[in-house]
Amino acid sequence: MTLKEIAERARKDVKVPIAERDVERAISALLASEDIWRVLDLSGTPVMALVRVLSTLRELGLLSWDGGRLVLTPAGRELADNLGIGPRRELKCPHCGGRGTTLGPVERIAGKFREIAADRPEAIQDYDQGYVTEETTLHRVAFMWSRGDLYGKDLIVLGDDDLVSIACALTRAPRKVVVLEIDRRLVEFIGDVAEKEGLPIEVKQHDLREPLPPELKARFDTFFCDPTESLRGFKVFAERGIAALKGPGSAGYLGLTHCEASYAKWREIQRFLLEAGAVIAELRDAFHDYVNWPYIDHMRSWPHLPVHRLPGREEIWYRSALIRIEVVEGPTIEERRYEGDIFADEEAATT
Amino acid sequence: MTLKEIAERARKDVKVPIAERDVERAISALLASEDIWRVLDLSGTPVMALVRVLSTLRELGLLSWDGGRLVLTPAGRELADNLGIGPRRELKCPHCGGRGTTLGPVERIAGKFREIAADRPEAIQDYDQGYVTEETTLHRVAFMWSRGDLYGKDLIVLGDDDLVSIACALTRAPRKVVVLEIDRRLVEFIGDVAEKEGLPIEVKQHDLREPLPPELKARFDTFFCDPTESLRGFKVFAERGIAALKGPGSAGYLGLTHCEASYAKWREIQRFLLEAGAVIAELRDAFHDYVNWPYIDHMRSWPHLPVHRLPGREEIWYRSALIRIEVVEGPTIEERRYEGDIFADEEAATT
Repeated sequence: MTLKEIAERARKDVKVPIAERDVERAISALLASEDIWRVLDLSGTPVMALVRVLSTLRELGLLSWDGGRLVLTPAGRELADNLGIGPRRELKCPHCGGRGTTLGPVERIAGKFREIAADRPEAIQDYDQGYVTEETTLHRVAFMWSRGDLYGKDLIVLGDDDLVSIACALTRAPRKVVVLEIDRRLVEFIGDVAEKEGLPIEVKQHDLREPLPPELKARFDTFFCDPTESLRGFKVFAERGIAALKGPGSAGYLGLTHCEASYAKWREIQRFLLEAGAVIAELRDAFHDYVNWPYIDHMRSWPHLPVHRLPGREEIWYRSALIRIEVVEGPTIEERRYEGDIFADEEAATT
Repeated sequence: MTLKEIAERARKDVKVPIAERDVERAISALLASEDIWRVLDLSGTPVMALVRVLSTLRELGLLSWDGGRLVLTPAGRELADNLGIGPRRELKCPHCGGRGTTLGPVERIAGKFREIAADRPEAIQDYDQGYVTEETTLHRVAFMWSRGDLYGKDLIVLGDDDLVSIACALTRAPRKVVVLEIDRRLVEFIGDVAEKEGLPIEVKQHDLREPLPPELKARFDTFFCDPTESLRGFKVFAERGIAALKGPGSAGYLGLTHCEASYAKWREIQRFLLEAGAVIAELRDAFHDYVNWPYIDHMRSWPHLPVHRLPGREEIWYRSALIRIEVVEGPTIEERRYEGDIFADEEAATT
């Protein structure tokens, strides 16, 4: 049995791309954990691909999950051995969670930010929400500061269920923070906090399927967004972000997962970013840890999971990379108006 | 005075690209340190661009270095203030040096590796050598292991003054490690160590301007290289590496600096990698720390430096990003034969 044979079998009758290396990563994850959420996390493959691989391994007698644990059979372990596959090792620095950052001056606002975030609106499925841990947001702000994208800068945040605008502004480092957000609950929450704390945040209700308001075009040094991950949806966010930037030397931040995006999709996204005139300045995988959202048993991939245990709220399995881009020339962006669903493609797992 | 005006003045009569943001980064670095090597490190801009920016700032009365320290004048500090530029902050995790990795199982071979490396051949200018710290090599191996690119895999190393082949093989994780190296001293050193320690390393003398030997084509799971950084030279290494890979799912590692490569060059390199069929899976800036090479006062940029203090051997200022690519389709590589100098372009600083 080869990885290729398993991948071909797994691909049968489904549209989601499944690479041989996805099969290898799945087996490597299964050698490291028997828990569905850890396996999802460790495999680093799209959920909708992974569930197919798991089913295929089971059909082939290589895996079982009768007791609610994912257990490689003796035949499965033998195959791993023959293919030279070892257990996945994370080897993340335990001090920074693998992010490589220390909070430095952002430490001072950590307590205040956590206090504010305690009252945040809960994530809802309508807008593909799901926010990162407060620790993640603080490290993100430190990262932006260290790259010269925070202090003295004009920032725009496109969709802000992470409350990154509040964390940025609390540091008093940026000159101004503008938020575009579709969810009225968040618009009100961020607006209220800004007023109460005297923060330089301006928040507007805006549907990103529509082009930017003209007064926000080409006006910012830095954008931040955590896009929905259909290829179309990702581009919507990236286009608006890039259109908001002043020009060469301006920077953008985007999140991108493995859970909902294959490397084939990553590559399409990267081509798009380069063509727009940007360089990929940094790409730190698994920088962002997400708090489990309340609609987890209503997400698209839930019925396909082999085991239906609800994870704890901070039992992290959904992570995303932090991508920093910098404009080198242009930028050249076609500002389109989008209609209909921007959330769905065959790799989408959570909406 | 604007960043644009300073950048335009700095660009006069030179070919090296100088971005406005390079000026900003230089000023930010100067606000954080008065030492030439720290400023080179913190600025994150090509050395040949930075030296022009420093001269321009001095001409404009914004900077002085009469006492061997780079000191912003009151007018320089006022400008920084007006432009909203703050001091550069690294905010690197002190435990992992910002790499995000922990050594894990690689810790066991650390002592042995350091012992072996103590007798290494010294870096020479002929081949643009300059090796990373032993700590860096160990973290690099841990990174490769954690990404599933080491255990059970066939690796090829293209140019190995870092001795990464030895560190990889000492872990006993890879199946095989092949090294192509032009420098006979290194070929002998690595060969001797491999024999003495019984390591699965095969080392061949090879000039990478020549295509790969046919028996090494499309045979490896992982390549590693730390290319020379002219655009042409970088492509030579990347082409050979990619040509050595089996296909989709195979991975490659490359180093890339700011010292000798502008973001415009980074972007060209990234387009090339994507066009070859790869995705940029990770890009961790400043992952690699380099030991200062003995020919530092003979490097191209030396006469242009404002201050001529020799840095200590482990006074790190030259760093490079770790880029991990993964083949998504193809790969498609044109295997050319190169002739003449592959080291020089207008951004080169060390050869």
